[in-house]
Amino acid sequence: MKPRKFQELTREESMRRLASVGVGRIVFTHQALPAIRPVHHVVDGGQVIIRGYAGTALLSALNTVVAYEADAVSGGDHIGWSVIVTGVARRLDAGQAADSYRELADPWAEDDHCYIICIRPELVTGFGLPEEDGSASRR
Amino acid sequence: MKPRKFQELTREESMRRLASVGVGRIVFTHQALPAIRPVHHVVDGGQVIIRGYAGTALLSALNTVVAYEADAVSGGDHIGWSVIVTGVARRLDAGQAADSYRELADPWAEDDHCYIICIRPELVTGFGLPEEDGSASRR
Repeated sequence: MKPRKFQELTREESMRRLASVGVGRIVFTHQALPAIRPVHHVVDGGQVIIRGYAGTALLSALNTVVAYEADAVSGGDHIGWSVIVTGVARRLDAGQAADSYRELADPWAEDDHCYIICIRPELVTGFGLPEEDGSASRR
Repeated sequence: MKPRKFQELTREESMRRLASVGVGRIVFTHQALPAIRPVHHVVDGGQVIIRGYAGTALLSALNTVVAYEADAVSGGDHIGWSVIVTGVARRLDAGQAADSYRELADPWAEDDHCYIICIRPELVTGFGLPEEDGSASRR
C-alpha cells in the first residue's frame, strides 16, 4: 500500500555500501562557491581515500570539512541509495600514499601531478530503499 | 599514445548531457557544513528543475547559490562525464509548479509535502571523455 520510501541506513551499512562502489563526489567550497567533483575512491581502515590532481579547484578542499557522497543510480533516473560522509580532508604524505593507492588512477589527472586525500568520516548518513529491492544496492 | 583524458565540454553540450539524465545532486550549505542530496531533475527552458521535500536540510538551499551536478558513471567505477551548474536556487510558486513537474515524484518525499526548486545556471562547466567513446555519454 505504501509507496517505496527511503529508509535510514546504519553507519555500518552506509560504509559498506560506500565501499561497494568506486566513484563518489567530493563537496567543498571554492572561491566562496559550492563545488563538487566526481572522483574515484577506496575505503580503507574506515577512511575514504581519493586522488586529487594538481592545479585544480580540489586543492581548496584540503584541511577543510568536506562532504563525500556516493549513490546508486540505475537506468539514469532511479535512485537506489545514497551515502554521505562528512569530515576533514587531509593530504597524505607521498611516502604514505605512493604505493598503496595506485588503483585510484583517474582520467582527471596527469599521473605525475597527483596526490592522495584522506577523509576521516565524522558524520555518516545513508538512505536507501529497503533491501528486498535488490536493484537498489547495485548500480 | 595518450591515455584517455577528460576534455572540457561547451555550455551547450553540457546542458544537453544534463538534460539526458534524470538524476543529479544538489550541493549547498546546511548548518555551516557542506551538504549534498541526490534528487530527480528536469531541464526546462535552460533551467534545472528539482523537487524538494518539506522539513529537510534542502530548505537551507533556498535563495542561496548552489551547485548542481550530474554525471555518467558506468560499471560502478567508470566516470564518463560530469556537468556542474552553479546558480541561485529559488522556490517556484505552487501555481507555477503544481502541474508541470509531476514527473519529478521522488522516493525522498511524501507527495503532499513537496515543493519545486528552480536553479538558473550562471556558471556551467562540463568535462568528459571524447565522444568517440560511446559508452561515456550514457549511464
